[in-house]
Amino acid sequence: MKMKLGIIGYGGMGFWHGENAPRAGVEVVAAYDVDPKRLEMAKEEGLTAYNHLEEFFKHEGMNFVLIATPNDVHKELTISALHAGMHVMVEKPATMSVSDWDEMVAESEKTGKILTVHQNRRWDRDYKVMRKVVEEGNVGKVLSIESRVFGTGGAFFGWRSFPEYGGGMILDWGVHLFDQLLDMYPDTKVKSVYAKLMTVLDQKVDDYFKVTLTLENGPLLHVEVGTFAFYKLPRWYVIGNGGTLQIDDFDCKTGGYTKPRYTDTPVAEVVVMTPAGPTRMMAPRPPETKEDFELPEVETDWTELYANLVKVMEGEEELLIKPYQVRRVLEIIEAVFQSAKEDRSIEVSI
Amino acid sequence: MKMKLGIIGYGGMGFWHGENAPRAGVEVVAAYDVDPKRLEMAKEEGLTAYNHLEEFFKHEGMNFVLIATPNDVHKELTISALHAGMHVMVEKPATMSVSDWDEMVAESEKTGKILTVHQNRRWDRDYKVMRKVVEEGNVGKVLSIESRVFGTGGAFFGWRSFPEYGGGMILDWGVHLFDQLLDMYPDTKVKSVYAKLMTVLDQKVDDYFKVTLTLENGPLLHVEVGTFAFYKLPRWYVIGNGGTLQIDDFDCKTGGYTKPRYTDTPVAEVVVMTPAGPTRMMAPRPPETKEDFELPEVETDWTELYANLVKVMEGEEELLIKPYQVRRVLEIIEAVFQSAKEDRSIEVSI
Repeated sequence: MKMKLGIIGYGGMGFWHGENAPRAGVEVVAAYDVDPKRLEMAKEEGLTAYNHLEEFFKHEGMNFVLIATPNDVHKELTISALHAGMHVMVEKPATMSVSDWDEMVAESEKTGKILTVHQNRRWDRDYKVMRKVVEEGNVGKVLSIESRVFGTGGAFFGWRSFPEYGGGMILDWGVHLFDQLLDMYPDTKVKSVYAKLMTVLDQKVDDYFKVTLTLENGPLLHVEVGTFAFYKLPRWYVIGNGGTLQIDDFDCKTGGYTKPRYTDTPVAEVVVMTPAGPTRMMAPRPPETKEDFELPEVETDWTELYANLVKVMEGEEELLIKPYQVRRVLEIIEAVFQSAKEDRSIEVSI
Repeated sequence: MKMKLGIIGYGGMGFWHGENAPRAGVEVVAAYDVDPKRLEMAKEEGLTAYNHLEEFFKHEGMNFVLIATPNDVHKELTISALHAGMHVMVEKPATMSVSDWDEMVAESEKTGKILTVHQNRRWDRDYKVMRKVVEEGNVGKVLSIESRVFGTGGAFFGWRSFPEYGGGMILDWGVHLFDQLLDMYPDTKVKSVYAKLMTVLDQKVDDYFKVTLTLENGPLLHVEVGTFAFYKLPRWYVIGNGGTLQIDDFDCKTGGYTKPRYTDTPVAEVVVMTPAGPTRMMAPRPPETKEDFELPEVETDWTELYANLVKVMEGEEELLIKPYQVRRVLEIIEAVFQSAKEDRSIEVSI
């Protein structure tokens, strides 16, 4: 079955889907927007442009809708689209509360139509490389995974600077970074959430956050996003009892992992004078007592996400981005906002 | 007045004081230890060596004692020394609980003798450079200060691996790193403490920790020490609303701070395709919109600590390392252990 995609909200991300979904064999047929300039752009791209939602839903042959509007209207548009017989993929965040998501899922179950979310960063190279190194046991038992994204844009653009539209970095980047880590630990409950949300330049929404997720039985997870950080800390930093992994940036060009090599050379027995003072623990390790490895290559192709949706339409595969996974991320986000507001760690079982 | 110093516990740090205190004009006269090998070493260094504490205290002319034993006996040795008419400096941590410290301070007040702690890292170059950049306003209002020390020793040596002797990294390095940050914010209360203590290789004491201190009105403070981390994150990382500071290591050879330069060049308005995907916030900043600065030079001399003690003995200066500051660090450490044990953030007013 051919996927014939209509796009609701032909802004930055809507346009991006229009450009990229065809690489996955998707036929992009129509766009709906309230902005006449955006509709002109859609026409230039060869799409049928609608400024009336009901007419858009009646577009001949269209069977799938991608929703890329501000976050506050994801719910009503999703429900309308499902009700009109469309399968639906929503941009992230799916919506702004767990209860809204539950309503959306109920409509999907009622109509028998697909409901999923564009959690495309499960296909990001850096994430896949991190998982490969960790899951192959290259750093031993993992104690801590740190996931950071730093930029220097420093100020939000458009609706993303307004809390009422679902602005801020937790809902923009946090939702991706939580989804990645939760997908890595599907069967391990998060037992507490500790979040610090800050406003460095922005006055209304979080533009800098640090979140700690504690798993019942797993590593400590740290997620951090800053929008006014002129130096980047590594994209990924992982400490295990068998080594350390660092991936500097999304492109995976620099970084690596290092494992100890057990030799007769004494480590941490001799006090060494260093710029840190006299120390055993912080002394440089003799080179023969460690081994450095390059980051592995991985195959990754984001179009798998659309290919999966086509197979789901044909009843041949399960959804990759499942509603209960989306719900779990939204539960974490609600705990994050609660933790930040009450200025304390929140006990959960998510 | 000449300081004539006796050293209790002629191990690693006791020897270090014996070597270094003379640079501050201190005369090191005697040592007490229970280990005959250590007493031999003291003799070779020209000190009078004692294996009997009461005799040691009677050493002719000795007026100051430095205590560098395992942490569990700091209290009883301090009280004995004060009682014997000595001024006392204890190695860090002063002791293992606030109530023990209060007993030590009470004895100091009763005898009228000095009681202080060797918080020498207030004179560390990296710390002074960080303070200078921040306190001169070079990164604007500070939102976050991160202080990290990473090594690869990986296993504790001697008594430091036993909880009953006060082992572990909170009591070894944490006490310094907390002291530095609290000394920077003397009049700002810490309102909550969140701590994760881990054992990467060690089985009995913390060899990896992450601590967040939230101030009533000030930046978020992060303190982290790892003993099995093959890649180092920066020693200092500071985010402010006017720039970013990074100091890579104790030697201050690399790092710097960067401030925005406000120009007509649009920042964060154009979506840029990057390895991170299409982004405004995380797009590289045009070079003309920022300005890089080198780390400043600072003057620092650890012997000021001993020079201060001589002046205090003469009644000419106040103590630099004050008992109430030491107490504040110990209160933080008690909250750290409580937070880690109860696996939640702890509300405090410290």
